[in-house]
Amino acid sequence: MSSEPTNDRREEPAPAAHPDRRLSRRHLLLGGAAAGVGAAGAIGVDLVAKAGLGGSAAPAVPAVALVSGTEVVPFFGVHQAGVDTEPQSRATFVALNLLPGVDRAALRRMMRILTDDAARLTQGEAALADSEPELAVVPARLTVTFGFGPDLVTVAGGAAPGWLRPLPAFTIDRLQPEWNDGDLLLQIAADDPMTVAHATRMLLKDLRSFAVVRWVQSGFRRAAGSEKPGATMRNLFGQVDGTANPAVGTADFDALVWGRAGNPGWLAGGTGFVLRRISMNLDKWDGLDRSGRESTMGRTLANGAPLTGKRERDEPDFEATTALGFPVIPEFSHLRRARSEDRSQRIHRRGYNYDEAPSGTGVSNSGLLFACFQTDVDAQFVPIQTRLDTLDLLNQWTTPIGSAVFAIPPGCASDGYIGDTLF
Amino acid sequence: MSSEPTNDRREEPAPAAHPDRRLSRRHLLLGGAAAGVGAAGAIGVDLVAKAGLGGSAAPAVPAVALVSGTEVVPFFGVHQAGVDTEPQSRATFVALNLLPGVDRAALRRMMRILTDDAARLTQGEAALADSEPELAVVPARLTVTFGFGPDLVTVAGGAAPGWLRPLPAFTIDRLQPEWNDGDLLLQIAADDPMTVAHATRMLLKDLRSFAVVRWVQSGFRRAAGSEKPGATMRNLFGQVDGTANPAVGTADFDALVWGRAGNPGWLAGGTGFVLRRISMNLDKWDGLDRSGRESTMGRTLANGAPLTGKRERDEPDFEATTALGFPVIPEFSHLRRARSEDRSQRIHRRGYNYDEAPSGTGVSNSGLLFACFQTDVDAQFVPIQTRLDTLDLLNQWTTPIGSAVFAIPPGCASDGYIGDTLF
Repeated sequence: MSSEPTNDRREEPAPAAHPDRRLSRRHLLLGGAAAGVGAAGAIGVDLVAKAGLGGSAAPAVPAVALVSGTEVVPFFGVHQAGVDTEPQSRATFVALNLLPGVDRAALRRMMRILTDDAARLTQGEAALADSEPELAVVPARLTVTFGFGPDLVTVAGGAAPGWLRPLPAFTIDRLQPEWNDGDLLLQIAADDPMTVAHATRMLLKDLRSFAVVRWVQSGFRRAAGSEKPGATMRNLFGQVDGTANPAVGTADFDALVWGRAGNPGWLAGGTGFVLRRISMNLDKWDGLDRSGRESTMGRTLANGAPLTGKRERDEPDFEATTALGFPVIPEFSHLRRARSEDRSQRIHRRGYNYDEAPSGTGVSNSGLLFACFQTDVDAQFVPIQTRLDTLDLLNQWTTPIGSAVFAIPPGCASDGYIGDTLF
Repeated sequence: MSSEPTNDRREEPAPAAHPDRRLSRRHLLLGGAAAGVGAAGAIGVDLVAKAGLGGSAAPAVPAVALVSGTEVVPFFGVHQAGVDTEPQSRATFVALNLLPGVDRAALRRMMRILTDDAARLTQGEAALADSEPELAVVPARLTVTFGFGPDLVTVAGGAAPGWLRPLPAFTIDRLQPEWNDGDLLLQIAADDPMTVAHATRMLLKDLRSFAVVRWVQSGFRRAAGSEKPGATMRNLFGQVDGTANPAVGTADFDALVWGRAGNPGWLAGGTGFVLRRISMNLDKWDGLDRSGRESTMGRTLANGAPLTGKRERDEPDFEATTALGFPVIPEFSHLRRARSEDRSQRIHRRGYNYDEAPSGTGVSNSGLLFACFQTDVDAQFVPIQTRLDTLDLLNQWTTPIGSAVFAIPPGCASDGYIGDTLF
């Protein structure tokens, strides 16, 4: 931790850190659930009572229980939030370039300010310089996760992990420079788009004297409350997407995401992050029938089960063959190519769909913000992508058009700041 | 109604129409509420039970009740849905240009197909040619509302209302052609962004042989469940926005929105629609302090009350003066300028915020999709906008950059189609 004198932001009392962040987070969410049920009940009864009166001219209001807006994810802890947090429905990823002249001391100032902003906003409080405090009152599970690019680590005078650099060129890549790389990453995610918009703006305002925006990428999943909690997302091809993720809270997850590997000491408790912008050609995908789509993936469309199984999480049987002797899960299917015998070659995916306005005569400009976390990008992500690059039927309909790698520093204590192990 | 022979889509049995759509809609929503409470209870209890077991490695899931995804807004009725429907959290507006050669018969075919798609998708069913039926299962209060531009009405051989043309030029306008006008409007709104994305794509696919996309504009409000149902939205300036709306279900609303005025017969049960893309200069707005912001609006930021009142819906007192003799609600405030003595000069606002990626050194590219419905655009919207054009402090921070006007045809019966009164 740095021994720099406390700046004036530090004098504000920070929310107390819980000794065991993981437990604290779960308890808080469950407490919220119990409270939410009460609120839902009360609202529901009220609406039903009104219905009983019959014929009143009250406008029809949506019958949604007021449960999701007040939920809070703790900010302080061993790890940053937004990595093992159950994915929120909206996320905005912002990469920035440091301004010339921003040195180590300025970076430290910058990260203290950003940490203070994020610590407040994620708890549903206005930031210190917040000129729209009324927009800060709905936390909706907001998390703000910071990442460092290679140049930022250099300016900070720290050692960068070997994998903190642009990914190797893959033959399928058609990268557009406007979606690549960056010095500082903000991942801002919540179940409410207004919350994401306000937090993004607040952080970018406070970054004005340190950095300029390089790119902004926004994505979505199903709204909170639309589906059963914990359901695997679907992408815009209609595929169940992300089934193979390690389960949060297991030793498996901890090793794959929070493991130390060869990472420098300041990154202990942190991890590695890859964001790939994958354009999905929905128009071309339309030309493929259902059985072609399922062969391409190696999974059913109905529930994402491997073609040799019944349920989404059934283990695929790569040896199974059809009556004619062909593999049930085709050799070139995405499921088979993405899978490795080496269980350490796995990642934690946390992606979002994007759907932008089409240009010209196109009917869609859509795809996937493929976001994933792993301890060692070179040892975990790169081998998977290399296999997919060589042979993957899905490549006919998908094209990586953006690519960025960041180191995700650990979390911090309530008297620290994100990055304090580096500075 | 048209006497054209039934096309093959019509042979599919359509959902039965309720004799009184308004009642039907309210009952359905309330039924959903009651069912939702049960589901919330069950989920909550399950989570709490799991918590009681303690220390299990189950991932922390968001404590959100599964209530909003299954809610349905009826499609068939006297009016189209999406006008008096309590605003959903997401909306995409698409304007299209008809392809050359699309004639009256083609338009009829087009509207039959679109009606069939919308009737199914809004009820949580896959469209007939839906290649991703798994994405159609969460209706989340989806509504699809169709609007006709002047050229479409001409091709159809119908009489256009006098107001169905571009708005008069206002001095504050800085219109960019890419956001203006159009032949056909789709307003696709739901509480779930995946639902909006899927419905939009499905409709645009079926439109490929009839029209090309002219513009797409997407916006958001608070997520369903974030706030108390029925709360007035806030815009990205932090202002409570839309307080003066007439209450749905009142005679006042019916006259302002569903009134006949001088509209042609085919528009009975329909209304007029204006969409203005209003760029909001958040960076410049930052230069204004809280009291300056409240004087500009004539309302408090905390709860949107007029500066002479305590609650949001208190009537403003334009005669009240300060100790120094100045009006409490300044002459040039937005509240005073937007208000008319003539109660018929009112509109039903149903806008959405937008927040796009900033370009260059900008920190924001944000604003308001100012969407409003009114029987007669010339008699209701234009006088308000003319007063605001002349003198409105808010003009210093806001700039209209897009403008479009459409006629919203009435709803249809389950054996009809949207626009059947015109063709």
